[in-house]
Amino acid sequence: MPATKRTDLAMEARELFQQSAKETTEIDGVIAREYRLHGCPVTRVEVKNEKGEQALGKPAGTYVTVETQGLMRHEDGAFKRSVQAVADELSPLLPVGGIYGVLLAGLGNRDITPDSVGPLAMRYSIVTRHLVDKMPEEFGHMRPVAAIAPGVLGTTGMESAEMIQGAIQHMRPGAVIIVDALTSRRLSRLCSTVQIADSGIVPGSGVGNARAALNKKTLGVPVISVGVPTVVDAVTLMSDLTEQAGLPEPDWSEIAKFSGGLMVTPKEIDTQVENLARVVGYALSIALHPEMSVEDVQGFLS
Amino acid sequence: MPATKRTDLAMEARELFQQSAKETTEIDGVIAREYRLHGCPVTRVEVKNEKGEQALGKPAGTYVTVETQGLMRHEDGAFKRSVQAVADELSPLLPVGGIYGVLLAGLGNRDITPDSVGPLAMRYSIVTRHLVDKMPEEFGHMRPVAAIAPGVLGTTGMESAEMIQGAIQHMRPGAVIIVDALTSRRLSRLCSTVQIADSGIVPGSGVGNARAALNKKTLGVPVISVGVPTVVDAVTLMSDLTEQAGLPEPDWSEIAKFSGGLMVTPKEIDTQVENLARVVGYALSIALHPEMSVEDVQGFLS
Amino acid sequence: MPATKRTDLAMEARELFQQSAKETTEIDGVIAREYRLHGCPVTRVEVKNEKGEQALGKPAGTYVTVETQGLMRHEDGAFKRSVQAVADELSPLLPVGGIYGVLLAGLGNRDITPDSVGPLAMRYSIVTRHLVDKMPEEFGHMRPVAAIAPGVLGTTGMESAEMIQGAIQHMRPGAVIIVDALTSRRLSRLCSTVQIADSGIVPGSGVGNARAALNKKTLGVPVISVGVPTVVDAVTLMSDLTEQAGLPEPDWSEIAKFSGGLMVTPKEIDTQVENLARVVGYALSIALHPEMSVEDVQGFLS
Amino acid sequence: MPATKRTDLAMEARELFQQSAKETTEIDGVIAREYRLHGCPVTRVEVKNEKGEQALGKPAGTYVTVETQGLMRHEDGAFKRSVQAVADELSPLLPVGGIYGVLLAGLGNRDITPDSVGPLAMRYSIVTRHLVDKMPEEFGHMRPVAAIAPGVLGTTGMESAEMIQGAIQHMRPGAVIIVDALTSRRLSRLCSTVQIADSGIVPGSGVGNARAALNKKTLGVPVISVGVPTVVDAVTLMSDLTEQAGLPEPDWSEIAKFSGGLMVTPKEIDTQVENLARVVGYALSIALHPEMSVEDVQGFLS
Repeated sequence: MPATKRTDLAMEARELFQQSAKETTEIDGVIAREYRLHGCPVTRVEVKNEKGEQALGKPAGTYVTVETQGLMRHEDGAFKRSVQAVADELSPLLPVGGIYGVLLAGLGNRDITPDSVGPLAMRYSIVTRHLVDKMPEEFGHMRPVAAIAPGVLGTTGMESAEMIQGAIQHMRPGAVIIVDALTSRRLSRLCSTVQIADSGIVPGSGVGNARAALNKKTLGVPVISVGVPTVVDAVTLMSDLTEQAGLPEPDWSEIAKFSGGLMVTPKEIDTQVENLARVVGYALSIALHPEMSVEDVQGFLS
Repeated sequence: MPATKRTDLAMEARELFQQSAKETTEIDGVIAREYRLHGCPVTRVEVKNEKGEQALGKPAGTYVTVETQGLMRHEDGAFKRSVQAVADELSPLLPVGGIYGVLLAGLGNRDITPDSVGPLAMRYSIVTRHLVDKMPEEFGHMRPVAAIAPGVLGTTGMESAEMIQGAIQHMRPGAVIIVDALTSRRLSRLCSTVQIADSGIVPGSGVGNARAALNKKTLGVPVISVGVPTVVDAVTLMSDLTEQAGLPEPDWSEIAKFSGGLMVTPKEIDTQVENLARVVGYALSIALHPEMSVEDVQGFLS
Repeated sequence: MPATKRTDLAMEARELFQQSAKETTEIDGVIAREYRLHGCPVTRVEVKNEKGEQALGKPAGTYVTVETQGLMRHEDGAFKRSVQAVADELSPLLPVGGIYGVLLAGLGNRDITPDSVGPLAMRYSIVTRHLVDKMPEEFGHMRPVAAIAPGVLGTTGMESAEMIQGAIQHMRPGAVIIVDALTSRRLSRLCSTVQIADSGIVPGSGVGNARAALNKKTLGVPVISVGVPTVVDAVTLMSDLTEQAGLPEPDWSEIAKFSGGLMVTPKEIDTQVENLARVVGYALSIALHPEMSVEDVQGFLS
Repeated sequence: MPATKRTDLAMEARELFQQSAKETTEIDGVIAREYRLHGCPVTRVEVKNEKGEQALGKPAGTYVTVETQGLMRHEDGAFKRSVQAVADELSPLLPVGGIYGVLLAGLGNRDITPDSVGPLAMRYSIVTRHLVDKMPEEFGHMRPVAAIAPGVLGTTGMESAEMIQGAIQHMRPGAVIIVDALTSRRLSRLCSTVQIADSGIVPGSGVGNARAALNKKTLGVPVISVGVPTVVDAVTLMSDLTEQAGLPEPDWSEIAKFSGGLMVTPKEIDTQVENLARVVGYALSIALHPEMSVEDVQGFLS
């Protein structure tokens, strides 16, 4: 992936690799597939081996991107369809087995709007661990789910990984699902895309601020990540618009010297982050409690 | 303490005991002292033994109450004086020793105003653990401080104790300081009192919703608690006003049946909680970094 | 109405009069009726003449109280039923006539939670004036509705009446609907009651802070008010609980000297105000645009 | 000014004109001057006549830009110096005369962070009209100041101009000061520049969403505007970075077809808008009440 093009989305890493290699055929070690689910475009990229890892700059694993642009265009039923599509792509990535507990962790800083999608999604997720534990007769049939927002190193002095490990030790979940804000290369994907992956994440890597990795190796349990791109690097943005216009591209690395690594975000970020956090929270609830409908989740949360 | 009078403040528990015992002399096993510090009234209650524990319904330990009414009356310099008084009472309760690390934990639900004083106080506290660790040349002389807001069981599915234990295991602090909202019996003390204690706390015990205790026994390190009363039980409120008016008291336990255990809070709770959270956060910062002034804290946080 | 019992609700003023007069028969000049609508208890009090005005301390007019306790108890369908009941009681109080414009005004201070129900309700109200004006082909069939939140004198330096008069002069509406927070005497009615009246209001009168009246005389157009009780006077609260318990009442005016006129509010005020603001906003939208369903309003607002 | 370069700052319009005219000499009808005040770079552009108006695309008047980058770099004393510089540039633009009243209006949508600088600045402005009126003995010597946040057409259905005219009719101020968010061409000026002008403004013109003009002609009193750039058009941003890098520029109008007129904003917009709103509010307070210091304003507001 060209150094000046920053993205956390595997589907974009693949596009970039193909563009730079000037080929549209498949990449060795990478299998990609595109289709629609509940009306939402889905891209599934599988990084199969080391060759694929090097080509895309992502660890081996499955990366599914669900596009939810219908939501921003206020299409009828878009919310429900987006929730359903994310839930349906999330379910098969969960470990097979009985009704094991799941720990949700919403990463990011609740007070910085483009970074708040993780903590906000926790608000829209159904939490049951305490109910299952204290009212087993009523809730004993449900999957125990806990949901934490560990905050960010700069304001807590604790790595997210440390807080999550602490919770894992007490809860002993069968899987961890991490929700975080991502970086995209395309404005059109900001706040209208959800990436689901099973290879773990490195918090803050999209904004050049890498923290301790969160994956099966570091946490000891399977880790699913759910990411929403909310920011785009200023130079990446320019480069892509130039390319989309079919114009000759200047030397972006020269230009990058003047952008100061600045990440930008759309003017309407407040509403958009709120909407996507709701989609993710509802989708998590439905994937983890398959007996519930979107209406049931709404009833439970209100 | 009479069953219908609910309070988390040791100074109020003592008042109540004396009233019900109809005596103003000292209570066996309880030493109390009143004085002023930086213009703020201070009451120091020491529960020395089992007799004192039974009389006040509080575990043995030191309970210092700093009253900050000047702040609500917008007196000149009241903020600085309140911060200084809380910091000065907090310092001697900290364990003696070198520059050990301290973990701050702000308990409560950030989205329920009267319960948000703990998480809010974290915002106004100087956090240094990551700086000491990553930039030792610049910050190595400072005490490592981390600050977490573990959320509440009902929305996270995790006990505060579980989250704090997890953080302790990674950070290995020399002390934990817990900030939480309390229950008072007097309206005049709501949002204008800070209680500092060294006996640990039982989160939610004031509102009849007791959680796992947080103290040296359960956490393995000394625990200091800093509490701010923000709610008062409706019947306790009535009982006290009746008493203050010198009128005969009805059978409050009868009346309690109609109040549904309702906790009330002043109309201006938003501003008052914000102000007290600032006082507590600044006081923690100054007590833990004695080289800093109120102005330094302000500069660091902005 | 006894001086120590403060309430903005006509139904409570009537109860108080009957209690103090020790009679349960009708009051001269006051007609009252109780029934259920969409499952919500409704009390309709009509103050017919000067005698009624003096008895209840309210200007002549119709006062309808819809109780929405089902909402707080999370009953199935409670939101929709509450919206429908408020809308159905609001509609007949609107002036008869063609599709005249309506100005909504949400009074109160958005930053003080118990006072924010008016401004918050504006967020949940469908506003069409600009659409009707700029896109007549698409929206010309709709009633022009504008919605302002004029703020409070203490932070703007302008009376609500001044701001509303200014908007009236530009918009020339056929009616003004004012949403405001009220004072109740009963805790059980806080955030679970909506009073609709056609006699105008005196903002802040419930909290002893009376502003210029807002009624047909001062504004020149019919004024409907929609009020939600969110605070209760501490002494009124005590007096009522004592009475409910059937106990002898102390001299409350003595006790009032110690309460400092304090207004209290429930601990869960944040959620409760948000919920009632939604009920009111949706009900206004449906009453003013009878062609819309609750789902249509939701679609329009999202 | 080239069509693809969007800016609300006169200093940028001047730069753009000079660049496109490939000359660095003065523009006919435009006088510009640069200097420092309290350490802040200041650019004063005077548009003297129709020639100047055409060159810069701005109505005749004085446009002063104060740069406050020190604030973002957390320089010591930067807040106070920025406030002082803005106040000192604002004062000479106020009409000469006795102690006339001033109406402040904070334009924009409080719920969209980059658009909220106007309403937020009102919170940090000292409001005295009601005090002067109701407590003349104590406050009669002060200038009567009112401060409104009229909201935006899309959520109120009322033009800002309509709401401001309404307030003017009641208050009869000697001047109106309008605070609003602006568009800049340079990222480095976002949230670190304040433009003060005496020619009135057209709300929303920066984001291609022009409303009724607010100036002496439409409002009947002198209008001073205080603007803070918080968004930049995506293509303008690209164009400028390319230019700063000294690279050949592509056909931006082609590229603009793919950007959808998108406005972007920095990732840290929440904190930055809050800081600038404080600078503006304090500066207004000091310019309008010259007897007050920054500390006095802080005391008054807390």
